[in-house]
Amino acid sequence: MPDPRVAAVGTSPLGRTELTGRDLFSAAVAEAFADGPDPAEVVDAVYVGNQSESYEHQIMYGTLLAEWCGLRHVPAERVEGCAAAGALALRHAVEDVRSGRRDAVLACGVEKMTAGGTAGATNALSAAFDRALEQRTGVTAPSQYALLAQRYLHDTDATERDLARIAVKNHANGAANPRAQFQRETDVETVLDSDYVAPPLKLFDCAPVTDGAAVALVASEEVAAKFGTDGPAVRVAGVGAGANNIGVADRDLTFVEGAHEAAKTAYDEAGVAPADIDVAEVHDAFTSCEAMLAEAAGFAPPGRGYESALPPAERSDGWTDTHLSTSGGLKARGHPIGATGIAQAVEVYEQLTGTATPERQVDDATTGLLINEGGVADAVTVAHVLTT
Amino acid sequence: MPDPRVAAVGTSPLGRTELTGRDLFSAAVAEAFADGPDPAEVVDAVYVGNQSESYEHQIMYGTLLAEWCGLRHVPAERVEGCAAAGALALRHAVEDVRSGRRDAVLACGVEKMTAGGTAGATNALSAAFDRALEQRTGVTAPSQYALLAQRYLHDTDATERDLARIAVKNHANGAANPRAQFQRETDVETVLDSDYVAPPLKLFDCAPVTDGAAVALVASEEVAAKFGTDGPAVRVAGVGAGANNIGVADRDLTFVEGAHEAAKTAYDEAGVAPADIDVAEVHDAFTSCEAMLAEAAGFAPPGRGYESALPPAERSDGWTDTHLSTSGGLKARGHPIGATGIAQAVEVYEQLTGTATPERQVDDATTGLLINEGGVADAVTVAHVLTT
Repeated sequence: MPDPRVAAVGTSPLGRTELTGRDLFSAAVAEAFADGPDPAEVVDAVYVGNQSESYEHQIMYGTLLAEWCGLRHVPAERVEGCAAAGALALRHAVEDVRSGRRDAVLACGVEKMTAGGTAGATNALSAAFDRALEQRTGVTAPSQYALLAQRYLHDTDATERDLARIAVKNHANGAANPRAQFQRETDVETVLDSDYVAPPLKLFDCAPVTDGAAVALVASEEVAAKFGTDGPAVRVAGVGAGANNIGVADRDLTFVEGAHEAAKTAYDEAGVAPADIDVAEVHDAFTSCEAMLAEAAGFAPPGRGYESALPPAERSDGWTDTHLSTSGGLKARGHPIGATGIAQAVEVYEQLTGTATPERQVDDATTGLLINEGGVADAVTVAHVLTT
Repeated sequence: MPDPRVAAVGTSPLGRTELTGRDLFSAAVAEAFADGPDPAEVVDAVYVGNQSESYEHQIMYGTLLAEWCGLRHVPAERVEGCAAAGALALRHAVEDVRSGRRDAVLACGVEKMTAGGTAGATNALSAAFDRALEQRTGVTAPSQYALLAQRYLHDTDATERDLARIAVKNHANGAANPRAQFQRETDVETVLDSDYVAPPLKLFDCAPVTDGAAVALVASEEVAAKFGTDGPAVRVAGVGAGANNIGVADRDLTFVEGAHEAAKTAYDEAGVAPADIDVAEVHDAFTSCEAMLAEAAGFAPPGRGYESALPPAERSDGWTDTHLSTSGGLKARGHPIGATGIAQAVEVYEQLTGTATPERQVDDATTGLLINEGGVADAVTVAHVLTT
């Protein structure tokens, strides 16, 4: 079974924009195909990760976007698992190429979150919770994640200051990433002084509301050769899927089981261990998520993931040398829900091809991990291992 | 590559019900697994076709339903291509089993269309049209399909009476199907006397608004053997996907290109021709669709699909002996959008296992076709060939 290649990637501007979903998509496609053939010459199928029809009163986003880049008779569909939708699209593209069924598949994500204001985004995201058992209590995404974070602070030595340091690290990375929504640094006191959204999570612990699109063309070696790259070809060496209950009741609140399972499967397929991972984009929808995912993915010993922003020498024994969220993560690069999983692939592609900006480029990076989640924490989780 | 089996099928009640989406799903699962092992013993993954979050303000339907039948750590996702969502779920299940990646995958569809009344359903369905170019003109699904039907009546010898005969045939089939929403016959004059919804389509040319769920377990031969069946095992011998523009502008309005391509691919994979198909469930969202799809799938000569309700001896030369919409079709069995593609598989499963009611059972049926469409006509199309 040949490893599919990531032949090309692109993103739209990420942040609060005047662009519609289709315009965001077009910008991402334009970047990805700038040095390659026309999409119609190579693309066999399109998968679009998109969370909510409510932002633009639009379903059928697969078909709409395929048509929008000139792919008239190319099968297209939308996949949805809330914020994991992007990685679900990527996984389908990878499996299609692995099977030999298709030679080049466009994996996309798009979300136009600002269309309904903050209330619109809060309402749209609340649809990810169980209607009968959760939504009617009035819970929001931050309040659900705060339950998990509160438990994490209770069970470990982590403090709110440790979580703040993760925000500071990711803002510093975002400051070095021309794609990031927040290209500016912050400091621990600013994070700690920001208002509580849901204790212990403060405004600066939370990923923002983001408009954006991202695309990755997954292709056979032959098709990938039609695209010029500035570095070695990037291979998709492993894929894993994990799952948990939709609700947080009756779960382990701090061990992210679904992500652990997804990462383990992806490692096994790729024949790598956590210590082999040079760069990882983890799903830091909140700073506490990065801490917990560092443990679930095997980068940090149990209960020590909160050290993720410390210099390696100051971390506990058992940490790997993996660089986390070099893009700025969801926190600073932005979190356009359905597009996040593909945006993660864009960052690791840049790291593995040596095309990241010098300030954030990890030297000699050859292996990367993506973990994309939907629902609260790991209700839907997809992990990919990319290698040179 | 082994042909995956359809190991078990089930549906909920179809029609206007008091049940929620999850309850509809539970009813379908209960039927499918009544004579088999517990779902948790065999199911490796779940795909759910679901059109709109607006009916129940619920996304993440894959995860929700997996949990609802006791599948806690089983990867699950939602797929969406409007009314083709069910067949998209079925296709992913088939490809997962074909690849050897998974042994048993639950393909589901669910829609709770009556939750928002007729206006809610009309609004939800309008999201399938291009927001920028179509929705704002006020078009609805019947008005879009009426454009196609009007052209069909112009280009062929078909009359509104011919379309009415298709409704009468499908109501007669529905009267013989205990699963059908409308288990009663009608007559040509009743159809012709019903009010115009969008000329030339009258109320009785239109599929109804339907609550419902359907499931099909796609499995390896080994897992399928754990389920008792009353007839020969049903194999998925061919799958095809087709596509067209999301909008009807700049299309051939009467030749359903996407469906033609999808059926042709499925035939080729299965090594069959249209004349080999004993039973076919085609996507008769409107009576005119059955006429056009009979041509696209190769059962009728060009321009003669409107003869679909005539006795075989009265049809033009070139018709196959295929029995169309033995379930009653979308018209009479009902059209629970995301569940329709799976409900089609349920009917062909019953036909091929000889378990349909005697009044509608086709003698010695060994080969069947499903065509499921989303958007206006063939914007998204998936075809499956099932065989004994």
